Amino acid sequence: MKRLRTTGVMGALLCLATCLGGTWLVPAAAQKPNIVIILADDLGYGDLGCYGHPTIRTPHLDRMAAEGMRFTDFYSAAEVCTPSRAALLTGRYPVRSGMAHDQFRVLRNRSVGHLPQDEITLPEGLKAAGYATGMVGKWHLGVWSINPEGHPRKHGFGSFFGLPHSNDMDPTPAAPKGAPGRPDQDPGWWNAPLYRNEEIVAQPADQTKLTRLYTEEAQRFIRDHKRQPFFLYFAHSFPHVPLFASDRFRGTSRRGLYGDVVEELDWSVGQILETLRKEGLAKNTLVFFTSDNGPWLIMNQQGGSAGLLREGKGSTWEGGMRVPGIAWWPGRIKPGTVNAGLACMMDLFPTALNLGGAKVPDDRVIDGVDLRETLLTGSPSPRKSLFYYRGTKLFAARDGHWKLHLSTQKGYGQPKPDVHEPPLLFDLFSDPGETFNVATNHQNVVTTLFKEIETHRATVVPVVSQLESVQPAPAPR
Amino acid sequence: MKRLRTTGVMGALLCLATCLGGTWLVPAAAQKPNIVIILADDLGYGDLGCYGHPTIRTPHLDRMAAEGMRFTDFYSAAEVCTPSRAALLTGRYPVRSGMAHDQFRVLRNRSVGHLPQDEITLPEGLKAAGYATGMVGKWHLGVWSINPEGHPRKHGFGSFFGLPHSNDMDPTPAAPKGAPGRPDQDPGWWNAPLYRNEEIVAQPADQTKLTRLYTEEAQRFIRDHKRQPFFLYFAHSFPHVPLFASDRFRGTSRRGLYGDVVEELDWSVGQILETLRKEGLAKNTLVFFTSDNGPWLIMNQQGGSAGLLREGKGSTWEGGMRVPGIAWWPGRIKPGTVNAGLACMMDLFPTALNLGGAKVPDDRVIDGVDLRETLLTGSPSPRKSLFYYRGTKLFAARDGHWKLHLSTQKGYGQPKPDVHEPPLLFDLFSDPGETFNVATNHQNVVTTLFKEIETHRATVVPVVSQLESVQPAPAPR
Repeated sequence: MKRLRTTGVMGALLCLATCLGGTWLVPAAAQKPNIVIILADDLGYGDLGCYGHPTIRTPHLDRMAAEGMRFTDFYSAAEVCTPSRAALLTGRYPVRSGMAHDQFRVLRNRSVGHLPQDEITLPEGLKAAGYATGMVGKWHLGVWSINPEGHPRKHGFGSFFGLPHSNDMDPTPAAPKGAPGRPDQDPGWWNAPLYRNEEIVAQPADQTKLTRLYTEEAQRFIRDHKRQPFFLYFAHSFPHVPLFASDRFRGTSRRGLYGDVVEELDWSVGQILETLRKEGLAKNTLVFFTSDNGPWLIMNQQGGSAGLLREGKGSTWEGGMRVPGIAWWPGRIKPGTVNAGLACMMDLFPTALNLGGAKVPDDRVIDGVDLRETLLTGSPSPRKSLFYYRGTKLFAARDGHWKLHLSTQKGYGQPKPDVHEPPLLFDLFSDPGETFNVATNHQNVVTTLFKEIETHRATVVPVVSQLESVQPAPAPR
Repeated sequence: MKRLRTTGVMGALLCLATCLGGTWLVPAAAQKPNIVIILADDLGYGDLGCYGHPTIRTPHLDRMAAEGMRFTDFYSAAEVCTPSRAALLTGRYPVRSGMAHDQFRVLRNRSVGHLPQDEITLPEGLKAAGYATGMVGKWHLGVWSINPEGHPRKHGFGSFFGLPHSNDMDPTPAAPKGAPGRPDQDPGWWNAPLYRNEEIVAQPADQTKLTRLYTEEAQRFIRDHKRQPFFLYFAHSFPHVPLFASDRFRGTSRRGLYGDVVEELDWSVGQILETLRKEGLAKNTLVFFTSDNGPWLIMNQQGGSAGLLREGKGSTWEGGMRVPGIAWWPGRIKPGTVNAGLACMMDLFPTALNLGGAKVPDDRVIDGVDLRETLLTGSPSPRKSLFYYRGTKLFAARDGHWKLHLSTQKGYGQPKPDVHEPPLLFDLFSDPGETFNVATNHQNVVTTLFKEIETHRATVVPVVSQLESVQPAPAPR
């Protein structure tokens, strides 16, 4: 054992904790915990009751936070959808896997590329450790109607039920230009295919029923696999536009259609946690709720809110990447904890693999850090830095409470970035809204961050982007 | 009893609730509840953990909210200090009492005027009903060194300990211009007098100890009056600038000096609630926490945050007047309630008087509405409308979720208002950030609000402002 610098009672307690640590942090094989990741799409930092929204009601997520750990400094790994999801499932910045592109920022509905086969995914790792793996919801890491290798079942998931991509990506000719933000939208304007595994079960998917269908499917997956450790990746299609809520929720929130949709999503989370409780699985299941990026502000009232954070989806300002993050594991995570440590969705990769007794790949750079101790003991997050990419370009870097911007750009509606020479420096603890550039007074911090950026860049090997190549649409008959 | 439209079990329950209502809402004379109002100064809507701030830690206020009722649509009665406090203690818009002025927006340290003697204050009403009444903290409704009639003890308080006005109002010649926002400020730059009743106990007050001294005084008041119903008005001097925290808190928060100060204020709230618990008074005491107006944004990092709300102190945009509002009364208020009803600090006037079995004045317009039922049963707030004044000018009006702006102006740094003809209309439920003017599509709402404004204006009798006259400073010796 390492020599402890503390003495007396505190020292003894630390010693006890250290001695017990091995058995406590790594459950025995028979007790491998189930892992559920619930991902919202375009939900902003400020959109939940427990993150301060004044009119959207999210009692189930608020309760999840009250029973678990709420992160206030949690990040998606990218500012838009495809790269963010690639990073979540690989534990690596998306620039490493080719799942980023400066012009074509996400996969489109006729994209040929997909998450490369040589990437090791979270479900692949957990499957090798004896887990049942299932995915429900939006994939957006490959379009198997164009290229079969892009299917979730080619990347570690035993089962799949959901959409291949965003819910606005198969517009019919009837869909007016700019339709996603219209309040009077028609579900028939979109032609998204709903799949069970490789089979289309509905096209167009009835988007008003999507959240409910996803939820029922996720509940079924939990019940079907309750005697085996399982990993469920439940990626909601909403509140990405076009927004649709079921009859039960439509028109019921104070926040309009966006609120209806988020409140139905909150209901869904409540259903999942309730199913885990009913099946007696709650005490052996880690559930993590987060969002793939910030709110899509150009959608106006059909976009969300980043609270006091600056900008939204598509931007490396905080509003584009800092998102809600709530962890729940009754009996293991201390209820009502607010964790201010820096953490990122990539961290779920080594955390989940280690919890499942699976191997964390050691033949490649893994950017995620293991949050087990943070979750289970409330100790400080081991993450010290974070890099903010827009496409393949590193726009900003964070070390502790400092954030250095080399370039900034609004998520949408600003054609070119503002390149900052000298760069901007913000203290995100005292200035989370990124209002006061303090670079002049902290040149040593600027220098340190530049060095960290160089060190990081040296680890990034250029690869071909998967997001560029598209199969042309067939000629009209 | 009124005919109930519901039937069966629900009807029977409603009937029971109605029958019990009389005794439940009005405690017997022997059980008159204690009432404590804790007011922060310039604390913004977004500055507490339970209102979404990512780095300021407020565990005691968060717990107060978890054990009580947190309002998401609660307002100060004005956008700056003096008028807001006048309204809190009279239940009336400050324009009615002459405690508003368009140029001199608050009382200054040589102001002759004060809260008029013919205004009936909350402590006067409660004192007449047998309450001990005490005030700790910042008064700002009269300067008794200039005019003895301005003292809190001339307006219903049995005891007073605190400052006559804001903590930046007695600058010494050493205080640099613009000093309030400086991080390296010196407590010796200000010469604020700390009073116990009519006697100065320290000048300059050591502002680094102010929160602690106030807190100890408030605890003493509670203990000294525990055998009698009491009303305590505890008005903190902070987080108004210049900011000072005690040694224990200075440099300890992540949010810088502003965070240190708010976290010490949070500690103070914890001390008050703990004292009530220890003395066995918790179940018979209503505590209400709020702020006098929004954050003072021009103070930069020494000003707070309104979260997703627009603008701050001094403005009739939401950020200037919507503030935290937390009610706590163990055993009477249902724990963990989030109340989205419209409410205002003026409502505490009739609420507290009615709880105390005191008379609500019927010889004048009272603008506050009784929130007893809302607090004790969670029923919808009876308040349907609100008028937003800047000085003596009505700038905006609210009805339900609609807000109509006749004029808008930043709190500071915008010399003249933007007069809106036609006016702006916002739906605060779907658009709490006041981004999307929807007047064109809701002309009937605009018409209704204009009528309500006219009806309201007809009740406002012009009076002389108390905020204009100032006694010149004595000539330098």
